Amino acid sequence: MHRYRSKTCGELRSTHVGETVRLSGWCHRIRDHGGILFVDLRDHYGITQCLADPDSPAFKALEACRAEWVIRIDGKVKARDEGLKNPKIPTGDVEVFITELEVLGKADELPLQVFGDQEYPEETRLKYRFLDLRREKLHKNIMTRGEVVDAIRRRMKGQGFFEFQTPILTASSPEGARDFLVPSRIHPGKFYALPQAPQQYKQLIMMSGFDRYFQIAPCFRDEDPRADRLPGEFYQLDLEMSFVEQEDVFAAVEPVIRGVFEDFAEGKPVTQSFPRIPYAESMRKYGSDKPDLRNPLVMQDVSEHFRGSGFKVFARMLEDPKNQVWAIPGPTGGSRAFCDRMNAWAQGEGQPGLGYIMWREGGEGAGPIANNVGPERTAAIRDQLGMKEGDAAFFVAGDPEKFVKFAGLARTRVGEELNLVDKDRFELAWIVDFPFYEWNEDEKKVDFSHNPFSMPQGGLDALKSQDPLSIKAFQYDITCNGYEIASGGIRNHRPEAMVKAFELAGYDEQTVIERFGGMYRAFHYGAPPHGGMAAGIDRIVMLICGVQNLREISLFPMNQRAEDLLMGAPNEATPKQLRELSIRIAVDPKKP
Amino acid sequence: MHRYRSKTCGELRSTHVGETVRLSGWCHRIRDHGGILFVDLRDHYGITQCLADPDSPAFKALEACRAEWVIRIDGKVKARDEGLKNPKIPTGDVEVFITELEVLGKADELPLQVFGDQEYPEETRLKYRFLDLRREKLHKNIMTRGEVVDAIRRRMKGQGFFEFQTPILTASSPEGARDFLVPSRIHPGKFYALPQAPQQYKQLIMMSGFDRYFQIAPCFRDEDPRADRLPGEFYQLDLEMSFVEQEDVFAAVEPVIRGVFEDFAEGKPVTQSFPRIPYAESMRKYGSDKPDLRNPLVMQDVSEHFRGSGFKVFARMLEDPKNQVWAIPGPTGGSRAFCDRMNAWAQGEGQPGLGYIMWREGGEGAGPIANNVGPERTAAIRDQLGMKEGDAAFFVAGDPEKFVKFAGLARTRVGEELNLVDKDRFELAWIVDFPFYEWNEDEKKVDFSHNPFSMPQGGLDALKSQDPLSIKAFQYDITCNGYEIASGGIRNHRPEAMVKAFELAGYDEQTVIERFGGMYRAFHYGAPPHGGMAAGIDRIVMLICGVQNLREISLFPMNQRAEDLLMGAPNEATPKQLRELSIRIAVDPKKP
Repeated sequence: MHRYRSKTCGELRSTHVGETVRLSGWCHRIRDHGGILFVDLRDHYGITQCLADPDSPAFKALEACRAEWVIRIDGKVKARDEGLKNPKIPTGDVEVFITELEVLGKADELPLQVFGDQEYPEETRLKYRFLDLRREKLHKNIMTRGEVVDAIRRRMKGQGFFEFQTPILTASSPEGARDFLVPSRIHPGKFYALPQAPQQYKQLIMMSGFDRYFQIAPCFRDEDPRADRLPGEFYQLDLEMSFVEQEDVFAAVEPVIRGVFEDFAEGKPVTQSFPRIPYAESMRKYGSDKPDLRNPLVMQDVSEHFRGSGFKVFARMLEDPKNQVWAIPGPTGGSRAFCDRMNAWAQGEGQPGLGYIMWREGGEGAGPIANNVGPERTAAIRDQLGMKEGDAAFFVAGDPEKFVKFAGLARTRVGEELNLVDKDRFELAWIVDFPFYEWNEDEKKVDFSHNPFSMPQGGLDALKSQDPLSIKAFQYDITCNGYEIASGGIRNHRPEAMVKAFELAGYDEQTVIERFGGMYRAFHYGAPPHGGMAAGIDRIVMLICGVQNLREISLFPMNQRAEDLLMGAPNEATPKQLRELSIRIAVDPKKP
Repeated sequence: MHRYRSKTCGELRSTHVGETVRLSGWCHRIRDHGGILFVDLRDHYGITQCLADPDSPAFKALEACRAEWVIRIDGKVKARDEGLKNPKIPTGDVEVFITELEVLGKADELPLQVFGDQEYPEETRLKYRFLDLRREKLHKNIMTRGEVVDAIRRRMKGQGFFEFQTPILTASSPEGARDFLVPSRIHPGKFYALPQAPQQYKQLIMMSGFDRYFQIAPCFRDEDPRADRLPGEFYQLDLEMSFVEQEDVFAAVEPVIRGVFEDFAEGKPVTQSFPRIPYAESMRKYGSDKPDLRNPLVMQDVSEHFRGSGFKVFARMLEDPKNQVWAIPGPTGGSRAFCDRMNAWAQGEGQPGLGYIMWREGGEGAGPIANNVGPERTAAIRDQLGMKEGDAAFFVAGDPEKFVKFAGLARTRVGEELNLVDKDRFELAWIVDFPFYEWNEDEKKVDFSHNPFSMPQGGLDALKSQDPLSIKAFQYDITCNGYEIASGGIRNHRPEAMVKAFELAGYDEQTVIERFGGMYRAFHYGAPPHGGMAAGIDRIVMLICGVQNLREISLFPMNQRAEDLLMGAPNEATPKQLRELSIRIAVDPKKP
């Protein structure tokens, strides 16, 4: 017989009754029932109930065992009595009578119980991650994560993509977030950087004559911690294609993303054909470029009804042509209590309040705004929004660029509070036509709004003739349930257009050469049209597992102070290491 | 029709004759044949011959094209005349008459020709890697690399392994090679390290209750460059299993490795059942722990025949019981010219020479050694080695520990020179029973010979009672054609045994806790018996592709000075970056 096991702890069924088996695993739970000792023996594959009565030669040994000890048992499989079967676990029809027991690994007093669902502080969970990971839910999430990655990979290959690995020690690149740096030993005073994304490499792969690249790529950003972002590293599905337009990327990627969600949706509906929502429309309707489309509310411009109306605050605002009044419909929200609650919420968000109209019996408007604008306009607003008796509408007014974010929050809040959001579905959409540039108010200049390597719609001509802030990019996101899960673009593969695009953002050609020398060079030796995307794997897994914290789907995460409490990272370097790397510590005494 | 292509450049066959098609690709080669312009249009999928005669509206446009320009053409597929078909390429039966041509990306004067097989200096190849990668051989090797990784992954899953990703920002670990360090911004004066291998994490995964882990893992070592090792990063197939003994690891891994070689062997024989060769036997027979078993030569101890013989140099040496004389058989090598050449080679290797006996007609020995030891002993040596007329044998003498490496080189050299090595096969073997410790002559102390986390054979008892240098480990390698391609061990999962093992190597428990705190802690909370391996993916791909340099199978390698010439890494950091990281450059002026 095998030294440790003839079966796993998830394998025994009633067909095995009568067999002598060997199992190894962790003592999940040990119970004494009237002098008989029961142990739920657990391994990766499942749990098997084992027992020893005082006549068993293993009784004394089992008596000594404690939770999370690793043991090996030999025993005989018996059928459980009908009333004692456990239909909740696959091995629930049988139990094993232990004849021999060997302790393979003892456990000290546990700082964290594996059995059960007790909550523990983050620090305990991370320091004893090896215990935390044995717990059912986290163990399962980690396995799901692996399955999601497998599904992505399988579907990408099915679409004709090839997997490549790009370097992790590379050059610091000035776009985007802060780089992690790695001092070079051989080149004193110089540094490698860990890639924020393989953006330049994947474009270089296209320029190297490969056709459809993908990678499950580790990416690194030295950013300050945020609730939905672990410090340090994260994984993205990175992909790029040659000789394509935007539609080709959509046609390749949409089935992959939809398919992956469907693989794990467990019956929840998944959007079959992703709607395409231009960025401007998304902002106008949902107040966000990552709208939660499970929320059915659509905002509308109702300025017309307030222009010159008796509600002077709005009427005066509308005298400035850039100002507007938007309405957020609130079906079934037509109660004073609800409208007051929304108003109080808005004040909590730092707003002066949230104006509203309620429609009472007979469809008559109520509330201060209704009183000021009068029944005719109130009815017109009601008709435009399709509201009826018992509904409400909320209003935000001013410069849409300034209020749009809050309007989006209010839309979300109204939808959530009125229970209009169907949580059990995955609503996916393409957001398209992002602006190429944006206005940087701090530096009073035009900046790239997303990826500087994207192709502006209209190409070089647009760059030469249009107001930069009016130029759209071939740039697109996929959103799911209010999160951006993927982002991409058709790249600017024309060197003249690239130089011009950077020039408008204030970088001269020399700067482009210095910062993106490899790319710049490559563009001059036969660059194919190309484009691609990158999807956030951690975010997709979070949505699939239905968890709010990245810690619940990451194997060995750092804490929010960017520390690995299990391995003790970061830690001190030795003087020899520092000398070899030609660096010295220079801690600023003013720093905390 | 699609904006860029209705077919790829590898797709057209005689069944497409008459169709109007659109192709995009690189101008691989442009030729003028009697006024007609031919262009071999190349993309990732293949090459298609296209042409334009002076009547074609695209003639002028094609005339302007140069090598490596990216173009889009429209045209009509025609059958080639029988005599002009090219059976070497799948599209060789047809050609496309160009009716329209669009330039998608021009190319400057090329520093490196994509067409043909010309050699270029490393610097040119790496700086213009995107051109180098378009060349047929390198392009194919990179694709093979991806296919090998796919095959490994598929076979590992077939063996029930699950894929995990372990952190890349982790703690510096004192074993093994030099770490790459990453300064922490949030913790001034502290550093992360990039993993030399996920050794500790994979063991922690087992202690977290998972069962069969694998990963295509990026690993990082800041080592000085070596011919067969690129600086920086490399990939390994990393795997670990719980509740296993050595035989279980062999049973899981052998089919994966054999299968991967078979997948790509193109008919070359691959060892079906890997022989298991104990380390000591491998050293004795082949003078190496990574023997090239394609070389049939097996060394033998022939001390007996020299003891007290007339060949005084050896006879005197053998008076010291630690000394031996080993013979390297040289079948068909029995010529003065060959033996002299071997002798000269040995002197080139810094040896005093390489003694030999040649067997002439009638089986009589010749040469200085034969003359000194006489016909009887010469015949006995011949019989022991199974030599015959026309053969030779070479001798190394002294302390085997000191000469064994040279003896191994001599065996390789004799085999190569006599053409005994069948290059067209993959000879795989397990090397087992590595010594657990070795003597560190510099520090006059016992050191771990390989992995400190391995289980010593005999466990804690052996550590307590045996001479450390006599203890073997459950540690094993896989070799192929003279290279170590994988290495592994059964781990020491008993905390007492771990502490004792480190103690014998001079580390007290406190040091173990400081250096391997996470592991040490995990061992105390229910550690299962476990073991695993790591296989070098780059090395396997090199063997499969039949290349000698890692550059030929790596996408974007650094040069031997650890520079990425394409991206310009490493490079200078900005003062702001250094300030944020609380480090300062401290270049030692004495350094080169």
